Amino acid sequence: MATIADVAKRAGLSRATVSRVLNNHPNVTEDKKRLVREAMESLKYVPNTTAQRLRNQRTDTIAILVPVLTNPFFAYLLEAMDMVATKNHLQLLICQTRYSKQKEMDFLELLRTKQVDGLILTSYENEWKKIEPYSAFGPMVLCNEYERNTKVPIIRMDQFEASYIGTRHLIEQGHIRIACTCGDKSNLAKDRQAGYRKALVEAGISVQEDWIFSNVFDIEDGKRVLRTIMNLKEAPTAVFTGSDQVAAGMIMAAKALGKNVPDDIAIIGFDDQPIARVVEPALTTIRQPIEELGKTAMEVMIDFIAFKKEVNHQEILLPYDLVIRDSTMSKLKSISI
Amino acid sequence: MATIADVAKRAGLSRATVSRVLNNHPNVTEDKKRLVREAMESLKYVPNTTAQRLRNQRTDTIAILVPVLTNPFFAYLLEAMDMVATKNHLQLLICQTRYSKQKEMDFLELLRTKQVDGLILTSYENEWKKIEPYSAFGPMVLCNEYERNTKVPIIRMDQFEASYIGTRHLIEQGHIRIACTCGDKSNLAKDRQAGYRKALVEAGISVQEDWIFSNVFDIEDGKRVLRTIMNLKEAPTAVFTGSDQVAAGMIMAAKALGKNVPDDIAIIGFDDQPIARVVEPALTTIRQPIEELGKTAMEVMIDFIAFKKEVNHQEILLPYDLVIRDSTMSKLKSISI
Repeated sequence: MATIADVAKRAGLSRATVSRVLNNHPNVTEDKKRLVREAMESLKYVPNTTAQRLRNQRTDTIAILVPVLTNPFFAYLLEAMDMVATKNHLQLLICQTRYSKQKEMDFLELLRTKQVDGLILTSYENEWKKIEPYSAFGPMVLCNEYERNTKVPIIRMDQFEASYIGTRHLIEQGHIRIACTCGDKSNLAKDRQAGYRKALVEAGISVQEDWIFSNVFDIEDGKRVLRTIMNLKEAPTAVFTGSDQVAAGMIMAAKALGKNVPDDIAIIGFDDQPIARVVEPALTTIRQPIEELGKTAMEVMIDFIAFKKEVNHQEILLPYDLVIRDSTMSKLKSISI
Repeated sequence: MATIADVAKRAGLSRATVSRVLNNHPNVTEDKKRLVREAMESLKYVPNTTAQRLRNQRTDTIAILVPVLTNPFFAYLLEAMDMVATKNHLQLLICQTRYSKQKEMDFLELLRTKQVDGLILTSYENEWKKIEPYSAFGPMVLCNEYERNTKVPIIRMDQFEASYIGTRHLIEQGHIRIACTCGDKSNLAKDRQAGYRKALVEAGISVQEDWIFSNVFDIEDGKRVLRTIMNLKEAPTAVFTGSDQVAAGMIMAAKALGKNVPDDIAIIGFDDQPIARVVEPALTTIRQPIEELGKTAMEVMIDFIAFKKEVNHQEILLPYDLVIRDSTMSKLKSISI
């Protein structure tokens, strides 16, 4: 197999020059680049990139931890990160934890063992005190999910306020019996629940603990919870969900039971995924700035890598929107007003 | 920093034994594994995995090339591959080409430069003769998309037959004016169009070339094409699409124009993604065996890697289903019959 010395000899250049070409060093003339390329081709020389990267102690790879790829929220977030990464000649190592604590720890090892240059968490499963120590091994960024006491930079939106605004919208439509569904025990899910509680309390509505449903993630979960809700005595007339997927499942199950959305049950989603406009009635929802979240997180990461910045704590809060559609706006009511 | 020699000394074992533990060699007792783990912990020893992998000439990483992550078909395909990969202690490097020939070539370099152990293509952009040479550098598998003349193994379903069956279903509902939308110029898209043509010709219906719409991929494309179709003189009464996303967009646009699906325009999707049951009317569609496609492709890849098999050509065809729902079944018609 040809070596770098063979390439240098064939090109009539020094080894150092060949090395500079291979490493895309800026101060190399086009002529020399061409000579090296031609020599490489005629010798069928393959640069051993792994060895090269090992020497340079960089991998040009960023690991992104996501819980599931099949939730479009994360697909769109990755899409936005990938756009920025590609422009900066970085590749993404997409790591799906499937909500497993063990898989998460395995993926964090990528940073410790220098297999990636940086790592972005979009959610996390382990206690934060088990995760934070890994930030000593390389740049780490939290995007979407967050933690209160950390030096790791955070890019997120204010889930508490958005959920408060969403729930208040239901109250403004005249609802006082409002259920809530949320994901897991993360800070993000806790904030959403807290926003829901604040809106109720502020309106003088007492919180019914058994109307708060946890671990509700996808279309099938939404169907299941809707059926439970409709079987309750004095059933809720509205639901604040933490997910367009869940809300879409609820609409499907409500229709299957012959119930009208929003007249029998008003439903509000979260994210503004494409499904929010596909389902009928179209979903009122909280639009998350998915593209901005992903772009900004990757830009912060690139800053750390390129400028060898100290990983200082910063928190970037991005804005949300309440998008009002038919799933909460009763046509009956607007006629009677 | 602690070295492997330090770990061996602390554990009271030979360097070779420590190395066997680090490389998960099967013939090591649990006792020795424990001693090595304890020594590593007390010395805070970090195995240099990149160096280790370089020596072993393996990366335990499989690159998967997908065109877009935001099409749920690919998210579910990756999910299935990831399940099998995880069980086999492999990680996925998910590479999004965004239909770019250049990005595809860059990702293929991963195989040549030994940064991955194998590479699975779920679609491809360049001419096959530019891609095939990379299979000399490591195992390559084609999953979903295919090529007729290649030694690379293929896992796919029969798109030609499935599209023929789908179009025939529309003809059986009494349609003779049937449009078609498809993706790009890939073999998969060509097969779908050929299946559509065969069904028409067999039924004595002449093919209207201007009713075949190419480069139609997502919800927005579906909306656009539906509006074009409805503006045609003697507009088609049915559309065979190559995508549930496109079909869902068409249903949305049809409703916005006050048209009834399926009475004014019958629409058939492709894939059986969750959106097919969310949209109203629910989509008649071709169910692709997404999970089986992903699982089988990864199993074939693992066989090559684990058993150092010669990469022999094989083609595995997986079965599909025609799933009949409301988007093609006229209620008017069933009453009048």
